[in-house]
Amino acid sequence: MVRQSAGGFRWEGVDLLPYKEDGTIFKSVTRQTLFDGGHDLPVQFRYFEVGQDGHSTLERHEHAHVVMVIRGGGHVLVGEEITEIGLHDIVQIPPMTWHQFRANRGEELGFLCIVAKERDRPQRPGPAEVETLSENAAVGAFIRV
Amino acid sequence: MVRQSAGGFRWEGVDLLPYKEDGTIFKSVTRQTLFDGGHDLPVQFRYFEVGQDGHSTLERHEHAHVVMVIRGGGHVLVGEEITEIGLHDIVQIPPMTWHQFRANRGEELGFLCIVAKERDRPQRPGPAEVETLSENAAVGAFIRV
Repeated sequence: MVRQSAGGFRWEGVDLLPYKEDGTIFKSVTRQTLFDGGHDLPVQFRYFEVGQDGHSTLERHEHAHVVMVIRGGGHVLVGEEITEIGLHDIVQIPPMTWHQFRANRGEELGFLCIVAKERDRPQRPGPAEVETLSENAAVGAFIRV
Repeated sequence: MVRQSAGGFRWEGVDLLPYKEDGTIFKSVTRQTLFDGGHDLPVQFRYFEVGQDGHSTLERHEHAHVVMVIRGGGHVLVGEEITEIGLHDIVQIPPMTWHQFRANRGEELGFLCIVAKERDRPQRPGPAEVETLSENAAVGAFIRV
């Protein structure tokens, strides 16, 4: 039993961690690991919160994500598609698909994320890949790198 | 992208199914499968909703559950422990542990559930097991069989 703390979106006994600790480009994102794999479930269940006007890292990787928004909203880039997301919307990130979350709707963006416990490291775009992505003007205007 | 429908707790293109179709003892429970496994995620992500005064089946199985409440509240039995649960509380059901959810707080109880896609069939208690469970008076008063 992991109880949500009074005030919400924090869980008792769960550390509030920086999104990443590797110097990657992101802004105002926190991470809490709610389930760290076990029994026949080789997955982690995490809660991320992107503060208002913040964004996650633009990245891709072999592993997939299943995401559900549970607080606020914003937009997400998946491949070349930019979609507005809000409460309880679900986003699947397929393997090797560029993706970035932005809390650009005047509020925070908090989401659950299911991911394999054993997984590859995310890749960030190099200058050539940013140029290719930006050939789509909407994507170029959206991404933060 | 699977968008929550207007009104909430339904998802576009996702069937609203009976909880079980096997004649098991339950009351007022619906099921929606939000992610059916894929890529490196051998898990399903489901939403169950127990209507006010309803309950899930009392059962146990080798597979584990990770559950998060996202609507209303109630109580859950896990082993011999009965716990009140509400918004964003997380419940882990370990293997071979009797469990039952009840929406007994004057509102519905809606929860997300992560489960392995390949899993064993649930077991229901026989009369001897119900008797053993009921040696704990609180458990005996709680369970619905």
